[in-house]
Amino acid sequence: MRSRRRSSPALDTKPLGPLKNPFPPYCPFSEDWVAHIHEQAVIVLRDLGIRVLLDEARALFKAGGARVEEDMVFLDPDGVREALANAPSSFMLKGAGPDRHVPIGPRSLMFQPGAGAPNATDLTRGRRPGSAQDFRELVQICEAFDVLQSAPPIVEPQDIPPAFRHLDMTDIMLRHSSKVPVVYARGRGQVLDCFDMIRCFRGLEEGAFAADPHCYTVINTNSPRQLDVPMAQGLIDFARAGQLSVITPFTLMGAMAPITVAGALTLSHAEALAAITLTQLAKPGAPVLYGTFTSNVHMRSGSPAFGTPEHFQASAGAGQLARHIGLPWRSATGTAANLSDAQGAHETQMGLWGCLMGGANAVFHAAGWLEGGLSVSYEKLVTDTEVLTMMAQLCQPLEESPANLGLDSLAEVSPGGHFFETQHTLDRYRTAFYEPLVFETQNFEAWEEAGSQDIRSRATRVWQDILSHPKDLGHDSAKLDELSAFTSKRRGEGGAEPLS
Amino acid sequence: MRSRRRSSPALDTKPLGPLKNPFPPYCPFSEDWVAHIHEQAVIVLRDLGIRVLLDEARALFKAGGARVEEDMVFLDPDGVREALANAPSSFMLKGAGPDRHVPIGPRSLMFQPGAGAPNATDLTRGRRPGSAQDFRELVQICEAFDVLQSAPPIVEPQDIPPAFRHLDMTDIMLRHSSKVPVVYARGRGQVLDCFDMIRCFRGLEEGAFAADPHCYTVINTNSPRQLDVPMAQGLIDFARAGQLSVITPFTLMGAMAPITVAGALTLSHAEALAAITLTQLAKPGAPVLYGTFTSNVHMRSGSPAFGTPEHFQASAGAGQLARHIGLPWRSATGTAANLSDAQGAHETQMGLWGCLMGGANAVFHAAGWLEGGLSVSYEKLVTDTEVLTMMAQLCQPLEESPANLGLDSLAEVSPGGHFFETQHTLDRYRTAFYEPLVFETQNFEAWEEAGSQDIRSRATRVWQDILSHPKDLGHDSAKLDELSAFTSKRRGEGGAEPLS
Repeated sequence: MRSRRRSSPALDTKPLGPLKNPFPPYCPFSEDWVAHIHEQAVIVLRDLGIRVLLDEARALFKAGGARVEEDMVFLDPDGVREALANAPSSFMLKGAGPDRHVPIGPRSLMFQPGAGAPNATDLTRGRRPGSAQDFRELVQICEAFDVLQSAPPIVEPQDIPPAFRHLDMTDIMLRHSSKVPVVYARGRGQVLDCFDMIRCFRGLEEGAFAADPHCYTVINTNSPRQLDVPMAQGLIDFARAGQLSVITPFTLMGAMAPITVAGALTLSHAEALAAITLTQLAKPGAPVLYGTFTSNVHMRSGSPAFGTPEHFQASAGAGQLARHIGLPWRSATGTAANLSDAQGAHETQMGLWGCLMGGANAVFHAAGWLEGGLSVSYEKLVTDTEVLTMMAQLCQPLEESPANLGLDSLAEVSPGGHFFETQHTLDRYRTAFYEPLVFETQNFEAWEEAGSQDIRSRATRVWQDILSHPKDLGHDSAKLDELSAFTSKRRGEGGAEPLS
Repeated sequence: MRSRRRSSPALDTKPLGPLKNPFPPYCPFSEDWVAHIHEQAVIVLRDLGIRVLLDEARALFKAGGARVEEDMVFLDPDGVREALANAPSSFMLKGAGPDRHVPIGPRSLMFQPGAGAPNATDLTRGRRPGSAQDFRELVQICEAFDVLQSAPPIVEPQDIPPAFRHLDMTDIMLRHSSKVPVVYARGRGQVLDCFDMIRCFRGLEEGAFAADPHCYTVINTNSPRQLDVPMAQGLIDFARAGQLSVITPFTLMGAMAPITVAGALTLSHAEALAAITLTQLAKPGAPVLYGTFTSNVHMRSGSPAFGTPEHFQASAGAGQLARHIGLPWRSATGTAANLSDAQGAHETQMGLWGCLMGGANAVFHAAGWLEGGLSVSYEKLVTDTEVLTMMAQLCQPLEESPANLGLDSLAEVSPGGHFFETQHTLDRYRTAFYEPLVFETQNFEAWEEAGSQDIRSRATRVWQDILSHPKDLGHDSAKLDELSAFTSKRRGEGGAEPLS
């Protein structure tokens, strides 16, 4: 019925605005059991302790009342309680402009595409180690989709030397994305470079930068019960700069964590509490996201699995723990599939629902991941984004009005007739329904005649179309020159080697 | 870690037992708005009426207090209320034996594979008009999966003459499935034949057959506001025989129904109420499932779409209406995809979640459907069933005990260590996690070396394996002979032509 044929309908939508999760939480645990897991995690930190490899972090813990023995830190339950009281329950993540700011707080919802993949893959060029070109392309593709609300390190650009990588990645993010950039915590040198670049490019004074988070990092503990040097330093540096740490133990049940959902969440919760405590000791009130990523291994192969029933239950249970401690919560989906096929789709959506029904404020790895994060697929990025945009549509409340109900149209159409031409339909048909990006409704014969394209081919057209018409972000050319100059200068100075 | 390699792990599981939906309902409408939609639907039936093409049905409506003018029936609101009070809120659907009985009632959950497809398709033989062989094979495949709890007419066996089709289909269902059979309401002659076959094969006296539903039919109204001859007759015949009518207006928003979710549900609800009223006039207390299937058309092509945000909202809203009238509820998922690809997976799972979060007691078309039901895919049947089995796993509550929590294992493993060999893991690794049927976790290199099989190839192996080792259902040979004799006799008598 529409006359205008658009190649990529989702691409000319208006910004979606802040999303609120409309789904009631699914609670696999009783409230008593959630409280018990929290208490046990606090006791684990007090009695078993956590190994902290950075001297500076141990000194902060000690000053905060923890007992330190060699590299082991045993936390005082009161110190943990105090940290939880100091960490903010809501804040505003800032992008390039107001329509790219992301409010974080009760019922808020954001999506981050898959991040950290060593490999990139697409239907036309195959699977290869990630490169700077892949990273730039993927940032540009993500920029075209409003529902992806931050610019993470989607793929690892392995062709850039490690000491310069943070510079080039941040340069690409700022140049090609208006969204909240994500910075790796691979050592103070790199982190401070990235803060400088973001502050200058966004035109922020020190005070304005520190007043709100303008970027975030993901802190993975080394489960079980260990915090390494770059992660501990990242927690301190981000907290002191007022920037956001997303604290995410990666606890695979049966491998780095106990084999049960409750056991793995107890460990994950303990590690997150320790890291949150460190941020609040470095700077009370520093923004944090309580993060979990608890899934299971496949017991025959020992490989990680995602989008499983256990992953789903762990997400929902972690959501209960997040609400118990009153902090915003980051969760994640994923898939072990090697192809963007039905397995990849099912697992990714299953994992996504675990996050949504757990009440996640941020769903990471929500688009593009394959192989449990070892590759990012251009086509899957597009296809998964279709699903996320559908979720964003479900965040819009239904209108409850007589006009919407349209009883007149019921009277207008005779038994056995149709509603195509009622005024109620004509008034609404352009906007009544979600307009799909790559999901098609052609009948079999028409589809066969048009070449029997599967969704991967249609998704290929979409991302190629985006790259051939890149968005003009309207950057000031002096700003871009300044950014280049900074990168060149720091490259000339040798950059900053990653810490390990 | 497992030594035993099974080709089809899900196939040797124990029966899952009755499923209870663990998810809290998502309510897109306020309670007031739900009550308003219900009231408006009652008023639609009173003032606009419904066209009923069967004399016998109009006579029943008239005797029950409705106003009848030519073929239009205008229902008395009190009559509708009385019917709702008489329809049971729970009952037991009976299969071949106790482990195949399906309790229907508050929070109960059952899955039915896709039904009614004119075409069958698989990777090895391609797409073709459905045949008796396809139907038999699909019934056998479904029999292997406990999570599929009834035996519907999955595909239309177009190579059987219409007057004999009901005989051969029921023969195949009874011979190759232990589950609740589904019967088409294509006229009294066919229906009574099928009742006879089921009663005799299950060894039931008239009274025992009538005491519980031993089969069901799906009644689609001809939206908007029309009930045709075979459907009306089916409602009467199933009610009088104590068998189950699943009353399902198929209301595509913007086509056979108003373009808004609330408008389409008002129409769907009105039609369902009229049909429910007819069953209760035919026999008070007859079992019914309040059914809905409300999705949208794609406004550019006019084709039906499934698994869309609007389909999801309509399912969740219909669930609210079902709870408002206190009846068990049948919903459905689906996809418009032409292939068992990522679109097919995403749409089917999205639609499934709409049903689950709406609180559906029966999810129809939950596995195998492609092309909005115009074909059934052997591979998709297997893949979707994997997801349903995961859902069944999520219906099992998590154990809340110190042993399950496993704090000892946390103490046992040093920082940075692993849990593979703790006693807590060793005690549980065989059963801790859902064991997938076709979802694989092989890493990319191993997967590539093994031939880069996508999930459709793996699913092909599964269904071929099932067909090459068909289950022995332990039927008495005299019963099978009796079944054959009945079919031959009725074929000799000319069968029964379908009513239209």
